[in-house]
Amino acid sequence: MPTAPDAAAYPVDALNRVKRCNDRAAYDHATVHALLDGGMLCHVAWVLDGQPLCTPTFYWRDGHTLYWHGSSASRMLRQLAQGQPACLTVTQLDSLVLARSAYNHSADYRSVMCFGQARLLEDPQAKAQALVAMVERLFPGRDATLRPPTAQEIKATAVIAMDIERASAKLRDAGVVDDEADHALPIWAERLPVHTVLGEPEPCSRLAEGLRRPADLAGWRPG
Amino acid sequence: MPTAPDAAAYPVDALNRVKRCNDRAAYDHATVHALLDGGMLCHVAWVLDGQPLCTPTFYWRDGHTLYWHGSSASRMLRQLAQGQPACLTVTQLDSLVLARSAYNHSADYRSVMCFGQARLLEDPQAKAQALVAMVERLFPGRDATLRPPTAQEIKATAVIAMDIERASAKLRDAGVVDDEADHALPIWAERLPVHTVLGEPEPCSRLAEGLRRPADLAGWRPG
Ligand SMILES: Cc1cc2nc3c(=O)[nH]c(=O)nc-3n(C[C@H](O)[C@H](O)[C@H](O)COP(=O)(O)OP(=O)(O)OC[C@H]3O[C@@H](n4cnc5c(N)ncnc54)[C@H](O)[C@@H]3O)c2cc1C
Ligand SMILES: Cc1cc2nc3c(=O)[nH]c(=O)nc-3n(C[C@H](O)[C@H](O)[C@H](O)COP(=O)(O)OP(=O)(O)OC[C@H]3O[C@@H](n4cnc5c(N)ncnc54)[C@H](O)[C@@H]3O)c2cc1C
Ligand code: HEM
Ligand code: HEM
Repeated sequence: MPTAPDAAAYPVDALNRVKRCNDRAAYDHATVHALLDGGMLCHVAWVLDGQPLCTPTFYWRDGHTLYWHGSSASRMLRQLAQGQPACLTVTQLDSLVLARSAYNHSADYRSVMCFGQARLLEDPQAKAQALVAMVERLFPGRDATLRPPTAQEIKATAVIAMDIERASAKLRDAGVVDDEADHALPIWAERLPVHTVLGEPEPCSRLAEGLRRPADLAGWRPG
Repeated sequence: MPTAPDAAAYPVDALNRVKRCNDRAAYDHATVHALLDGGMLCHVAWVLDGQPLCTPTFYWRDGHTLYWHGSSASRMLRQLAQGQPACLTVTQLDSLVLARSAYNHSADYRSVMCFGQARLLEDPQAKAQALVAMVERLFPGRDATLRPPTAQEIKATAVIAMDIERASAKLRDAGVVDDEADHALPIWAERLPVHTVLGEPEPCSRLAEGLRRPADLAGWRPG
């Protein structure tokens, strides 16, 4: 997916310039944001006393800012609250690629890496708004139907914000790519798609009587 | 999933002791290895000049050692080859949990974080063997059917090994957990399962005539 030279894009330097297979790179806002908005689970790399940690967490995006949340007592969030560099990565594995040689085995995928300085969302109102945005991003219309958060719940929660300073996307969608000479060999080769799908919703066993699944969730259906 | 006190387990210290929701923690080899062997995609956190990076990659396990591979010219692998600390994380998202309050929204998941010092697999024979193990781990029986790697292909490839020094697993399988008082509210709550499934294999359009899908791949079927 090439970046039009005039497209609005994140700046590129030695940190985020894709070197390996750089024909798969993109830096434009449209590609980066589409990948960010297409996922919900990320992995955050951060450093504690020189030791890298890779923590899975939910995240959401507003403009050029990424957010994630957790306990006010969380080690990761307390460390990042001090204004630390972080890297937030979102990955979609689209297929396994079985080639005729071991070497040409590969995968189709879409991934995005975002770099910035994490900071704590201090303002209680901004924090409360961000948490509404988190629920609404996954389940549009749901927040207004919920028992609202208490002051204690908001206090127990920390929200980290990170303005995206640099970002890179990398996408492979090539399927089987074998050496020309290998095509003649009597060896099976295929692309094996991998999908993430939803199962049947499991209603809580203690639902109040007469409740039906809200229409807002209709988009969240199996398959 | 509790760790039997006598079970063989990874050592626990301040780095890998689960503090948040620590009733979800496990450190025993059986749990950690099952999670590692159940996945194929990981995210590796590593540090370059103080900057954390979070890189998606395939991995495999042999005993207490994790492996991953790529180009001999890869920046990540060259950096890690120098004997750097890394954190390799494997995550399965099992469900979204929709509660009656925003605060109690959650997810069921299984994840494992492994810590160690990365190193380069220098010995060409060990490297070649590890790459066979990589193919065989995903596609048992397949390696022997492939066009073997050339010396140049092996040379172009780097394999990183990391002995697991510390590890932690964290698992949630609780579904909806609401405040007791909230159960009476007329608010929908459910567990929404998330699955990773395979699609229909797409055979290469240039297969040699008369080839059929090998029986070895029978386990890789849609659904
Ligand atoms: C799919 C998924 C989504 C998640 N979403 C969120 C979210 O939105 N908000 C949130 O707060 N948390 C989320 N988590 C949990 C998150 O990964 C952390 O466990 C949590 O944020 C606490 O982080 P901490 O650094 O304070 O943990 P601490 O308990 O202080 O971490 C100490 C040590 O415990 C171990 N550990 C911590 N977390 C994990 C883990 N997930 N797997 C294995 N070992 C671990 C590590 O060794 C770590 O060094 C999610 C986890 C998964 C798998
Ligand atoms: C599902 C999946 C599986 C993968 N499996 C493997 C594997 O087994 N072996 C392997 O070598 N590689 C694998 N990759 C690619 C891997 O993520 C790296 O791109 C590759 O290892 C090169 O790393 P590098 O540090 O040398 O990259 P460089 O090109 O030197 O990285 C420079 C910069 O490019 C950007 N960049 C690099 N990789 C990515 C990415 N994936 N997404 C977004 N931006 C990126 C970052 O900003 C990075 O700082 C996989 C990727 C995905 C998504
Ligand atoms: C089932 C087995 C394998 C799978 C699924 C696999 C998958 C991948 C993937 C996804 C990449 C990243 C490509 C990119 O950056 O876009 C990669 C890179 C690479 N793989 Fe593999 N691989 C496998 C086996 C092998 C073997 C056996 C070798 C060597 C004999 C090998 C050598 C390489 C090399 C050299 C790169 C780096 C390419 C580059 O950065 O230029 N792979 N592999
Ligand atoms: C759709 C919305 C939400 C989802 C999917 C979600 C998911 C999660 C997950 C998976 C965890 C990790 C639990 C663990 O470590 O095992 C978590 C932690 C947490 N969440 Fe949320 N959450 C959501 C909304 C909220 C909101 C709106 C609030 C506050 C009002 C909140 C407050 C917290 C707190 C305080 C923790 C830390 C728990 C602890 O470590 O003790 N969450 N959330």
